[in-house]
Amino acid sequence: MKKRLFDFSDVHLYVVTQTPRAGQTYLDMVSAACAGGADVIQLRDKSLSARALFRLAKDLQALCDKTGTLFILNDRVDVALAADVDGVHVGQEDLPVRVVRQMMGHKKLIGCSTHSTAQALAAVGDGADYISCGPLFATPTKPDYAPVGLDLVKEYRRLVRTPFVAIGGIDESNVAQAIAAGADRVAVVRAIAGAADVAHAARSMKDLILKAKAGRS
Amino acid sequence: MKKRLFDFSDVHLYVVTQTPRAGQTYLDMVSAACAGGADVIQLRDKSLSARALFRLAKDLQALCDKTGTLFILNDRVDVALAADVDGVHVGQEDLPVRVVRQMMGHKKLIGCSTHSTAQALAAVGDGADYISCGPLFATPTKPDYAPVGLDLVKEYRRLVRTPFVAIGGIDESNVAQAIAAGADRVAVVRAIAGAADVAHAARSMKDLILKAKAGRS
Repeated sequence: MKKRLFDFSDVHLYVVTQTPRAGQTYLDMVSAACAGGADVIQLRDKSLSARALFRLAKDLQALCDKTGTLFILNDRVDVALAADVDGVHVGQEDLPVRVVRQMMGHKKLIGCSTHSTAQALAAVGDGADYISCGPLFATPTKPDYAPVGLDLVKEYRRLVRTPFVAIGGIDESNVAQAIAAGADRVAVVRAIAGAADVAHAARSMKDLILKAKAGRS
Repeated sequence: MKKRLFDFSDVHLYVVTQTPRAGQTYLDMVSAACAGGADVIQLRDKSLSARALFRLAKDLQALCDKTGTLFILNDRVDVALAADVDGVHVGQEDLPVRVVRQMMGHKKLIGCSTHSTAQALAAVGDGADYISCGPLFATPTKPDYAPVGLDLVKEYRRLVRTPFVAIGGIDESNVAQAIAAGADRVAVVRAIAGAADVAHAARSMKDLILKAKAGRS
């Protein structure tokens, strides 16, 4: 059931976690996102200790294995290695992709957040398996970044052969624009991880992505 | 000039950094601590990004190499590996020592914070090269931990063959008590890294440690 690593051809919906609300756990959130059709889950929590992240990452990898969903950890290469997860996602302020590749080897997935074509081409040159492109729209998740806009998606579509994921402020109201601009995959944080019904939100978003992709061709 | 790794017999003074004050840099602080006779420097800064920590750790390792001072990074095993520093120090909420050893191999030093004999023996059993014992006295650096007191130093002296470092609220007024209780090494944060004259504070503390050890035998 497990997807072959590095194969992003079937990846449409990439869900990034956020801190669970009262009464919700990460296991609830991720389980519901997987049930709703998420193809990749990224755990991102800068507030957890390495020990807590290590335990949680092992549990979430096991959960994702049940549905063949890829599981990626944000930033902490050491915890990703210790918990033997599918991959790690680094930003421009995390360890450089080239260094991460030396530590992770080629059996693990490495993703990298990029905000310009220069950053995209650098990440790809350094060996990233996929990159993100964003933030597409204004988002409270990354208040310090100005939106890059749909034109950058068009540029990536034209210039970048490595799979890229559009991210940043994407919800049901604007996902079709991201796809129309050339994104084959979108990453969603708040509109899924923060939804009252996470599984329903994931399913609904996945449908919108698939419809928009079908309508594009 | 470089000390052989794992040899703690010449280690008396272990300095842990704190965030530099305005106008001061980590390079100033560490350079002065080394000049003042620190045998080990530990960089501990939870607020820096992995990228910033990576750059800083490489610079501080190069600086410490000049005086043969051991350089240890707190918590981030991935950054420690990437920057090729002498070792890593983990706490009870960081990655487990056994897991860290698998990642770091036997050419790197692993230290572990312990707060009881049970934790000490577990860390030693898992392969720590040295452990810390503390917080000895009340300290603003670790407000959530109750002081363990001098009796725990006496217990470690009796039970633990692995080198241990007394830590927590140690300054010029109380360092002799830590040594008298059986500590061969003390770690200092605020009283050195936060001193107006870091080199002078380190030199003065090192003298007090050596005198107290000489007076003990």
